[in-house]
Amino acid sequence: DSQYSPGYYWLGNNTLKVPLVLHKENRQRLVSQILSKHKDQVKENSFILLESGKSTMQYDTDHEPLFKQERYFFWTFGSDIPDCFGIVGLDEQATSILCIPKLPAEYATWMGEIRSKEYYKSIFLVDQVLYVDEMMDYLKSKNASTIYTILGTNTDSGSTFVEPQYPGLRETFNVNNTLLFPEIAECRVIKSPKEVEVIRYCVDASVSAHKHVMRKVKVGLKEYQCESEFLHHVYNEWGCRNVGYTCICAANKNSAVLHYGHAGEPNSATISENGFCLFDMGAEYHSYTADITCSFPATGKFSPEQRVVYQAVLDASVAVMEAMRPGVSWVDMHKLAERCILAALLKAGILVGDLQDLIANKIGSVFFPHGLGHFLGLDTHDVGGYLGDCQPKVHSLRTTRTLKAGMVITSEPGCYFINHLLTQALSNPETAKFFNLTELDKYRNIGGVRIEDDILVTETGCDNLSKNLPRTIDEIEAFMLK
Amino acid sequence: DSQYSPGYYWLGNNTLKVPLVLHKENRQRLVSQILSKHKDQVKENSFILLESGKSTMQYDTDHEPLFKQERYFFWTFGSDIPDCFGIVGLDEQATSILCIPKLPAEYATWMGEIRSKEYYKSIFLVDQVLYVDEMMDYLKSKNASTIYTILGTNTDSGSTFVEPQYPGLRETFNVNNTLLFPEIAECRVIKSPKEVEVIRYCVDASVSAHKHVMRKVKVGLKEYQCESEFLHHVYNEWGCRNVGYTCICAANKNSAVLHYGHAGEPNSATISENGFCLFDMGAEYHSYTADITCSFPATGKFSPEQRVVYQAVLDASVAVMEAMRPGVSWVDMHKLAERCILAALLKAGILVGDLQDLIANKIGSVFFPHGLGHFLGLDTHDVGGYLGDCQPKVHSLRTTRTLKAGMVITSEPGCYFINHLLTQALSNPETAKFFNLTELDKYRNIGGVRIEDDILVTETGCDNLSKNLPRTIDEIEAFMLK
Ligand SMILES: [Mn+2]
Ligand SMILES: [Mn+2]
Repeated sequence: DSQYSPGYYWLGNNTLKVPLVLHKENRQRLVSQILSKHKDQVKENSFILLESGKSTMQYDTDHEPLFKQERYFFWTFGSDIPDCFGIVGLDEQATSILCIPKLPAEYATWMGEIRSKEYYKSIFLVDQVLYVDEMMDYLKSKNASTIYTILGTNTDSGSTFVEPQYPGLRETFNVNNTLLFPEIAECRVIKSPKEVEVIRYCVDASVSAHKHVMRKVKVGLKEYQCESEFLHHVYNEWGCRNVGYTCICAANKNSAVLHYGHAGEPNSATISENGFCLFDMGAEYHSYTADITCSFPATGKFSPEQRVVYQAVLDASVAVMEAMRPGVSWVDMHKLAERCILAALLKAGILVGDLQDLIANKIGSVFFPHGLGHFLGLDTHDVGGYLGDCQPKVHSLRTTRTLKAGMVITSEPGCYFINHLLTQALSNPETAKFFNLTELDKYRNIGGVRIEDDILVTETGCDNLSKNLPRTIDEIEAFMLK
Repeated sequence: DSQYSPGYYWLGNNTLKVPLVLHKENRQRLVSQILSKHKDQVKENSFILLESGKSTMQYDTDHEPLFKQERYFFWTFGSDIPDCFGIVGLDEQATSILCIPKLPAEYATWMGEIRSKEYYKSIFLVDQVLYVDEMMDYLKSKNASTIYTILGTNTDSGSTFVEPQYPGLRETFNVNNTLLFPEIAECRVIKSPKEVEVIRYCVDASVSAHKHVMRKVKVGLKEYQCESEFLHHVYNEWGCRNVGYTCICAANKNSAVLHYGHAGEPNSATISENGFCLFDMGAEYHSYTADITCSFPATGKFSPEQRVVYQAVLDASVAVMEAMRPGVSWVDMHKLAERCILAALLKAGILVGDLQDLIANKIGSVFFPHGLGHFLGLDTHDVGGYLGDCQPKVHSLRTTRTLKAGMVITSEPGCYFINHLLTQALSNPETAKFFNLTELDKYRNIGGVRIEDDILVTETGCDNLSKNLPRTIDEIEAFMLK
């Protein structure tokens, strides 16, 4: 009655039964790609070596935060056991060896049954299971010629990946830490059909929970009560213990704070009369995640100003989804969204002047200061945004690549009335001249709108995985009436 | 509409409004204690320097786990801002300076309003707020003679506290890292009345949620659905965003796994017919936590065997609470609980022989392999268990101290049928002779029972903060019938 059975991860009831052959396919994809692109360079008896996340304790206490597996390791092995190593042979079979820690006898008293190597082999569909302290001998017995490890910089965080640490590894073997990183990151960019099914499940859970929250919302509730409803819904009904990122439950002016909800701004405000809600929340299952934002008035009825801003963002969202297909540049999609939003603000009279001048003077980033979207997968801001054909970073974009079938990416145009950005723009005569202050004043306290969907790029266009959300103004007003 | 107002932390509605003068009193207690015990050693212009927790990102990604403040810092300043330092003057006024990070302008776009020094001064009731990069100049301007920092080992984790890191600190000032640790840990052991009020609130929230879960439990539910109910109840109704530790929702045989519920055993079993539940969950508020375990049959009706084991543990719990008062040794309390449990198992015929022989042969730790309880406060396993009059570590006890008024400690006797411990005991003729195998067999699959309460030691005895739980067999059966 565990979360694992041979070859599957499943939490029972109506939750998704994930075939762990997903990860065997990932290993095979990775090895095929390396062998086909680098066959001259890769010698026989070469191995990929990955290290799992380590169990940690908070500060100097014995509090263990709930373990989250390192994502490259998880992608490759599907295992959420800490303190492991994993080996993949660069051979046709992509021979896989999971190295698990040897647990002390008291583990059985405190943590649970100590399972056998055979048990883990059957669950995770690897060719062999060893104890970590047998790993070096295995590699020696195979006359390992080169060990490939990950070294590289995450382009969202700027952090560098920590290479596997094992005593004597670098002294004993020839270690190459340059080849693997771009290859495994690129493999993670293109989702297999089985990966898409898991992401689709995370999205379905999140869509269901967002709708549940929209039904519960009312003036006078605390923002955190909406977070609590979301978390309970995805866990209780969908088995999602974690969310991919801290819930952003921003109401009123807080909806203009892009990453509201962290410990310093803990969703603690009361939803006010005419409060506008921007709820950005995504459930995680089998370590994959959704990332969805719904924006709506707490009362279920849009004010004229809310209607203008919401429609501006929705126009952008629709235009982007109509244009998304393989071969399209994500930078162009961002510019398209920005143009839609600026055009709508012009039409509403908040901005004045010529659309091209607004764009040239970067008025777009006053209202839409973040990128249009990012890859989505095991990480909320998934890896690979600056590989291959990418352009240099522009507009805070987390990727500047050309779309390919199999990518899963968020589209999240937004329009916000952010005090300090407006003040900045208004204090500079070059940009101030584009604003109609009388009109702007009507909007300065409404906060912001973001419409974020999770989208699979298909061979011929795209599939909006979160399409079951009420998105038009009419749909939202009708849905919230119920 | 933030969680803070001048001098208070509050999440609105019926949540507890915590006066932040609590932490000012903590600072004064700490300084008084140091000045009174070490007045010959402490020179004029001496300062305590603490560093807060740092904001972190997971692995190489840009995912930021929800920030949890370092607890010594929180105890002293009550602030959950990361990347700070805090100074307390070793003078009569316990002059306090909170040093906050200077935030970049884009913080306002992504994270929220950048508040002024005056704002934080008014919230946290400190004498002065500086930016971190002004800290060294402040200490120089005061001709700081000695800077006292924390260095010491946490006796639950064995981890060593990381001293404040700041460029040039050790080169510029005389740093003493030995005096502070035992003093501040001892201050944390004795809870002030204001601290007790916060803990009492965490306990009230947890009691309410445990009762809610007991009403929801039924055969066929997943364990994690019970966790989800608990989490939602404490957050939605009591404002508790965090729990002090990962929820242990163990049903069936899992109730014999002491720290079930972690990522490897994620509360994923189905509650079975005749399943016995051991739910160990505690809500956190203003960084203080509760730690409560309820044990009950999923059906609400005890089987004869469940009745025997439950009553054994309840006898122990009652005996301990009747004996707890200042001056009593916690080691003696543990022995008392163990004796009660062994006596009940003897009476039930599971064990045979003489009670003194059972104790001498350590049969107690086969059924009750953990300590009776631990201090409770900002940490679940709170600090200070091995200070002062403690005895050397025995019986996995997290403290061996003599009780004093103001201590808050858990009492959590337990009795478990743990396969590998029983197998071990039965394979040794010296211990095997005490077991009646026919009787034991009836119990081997029922799992375990733990009854955990949170108890304040008073001047004359003790106050069970969690006394509103149904605890006797009759109370539980009546409560679950409703
Ligand atoms: Mn996003
Ligand atoms: Mn406990």
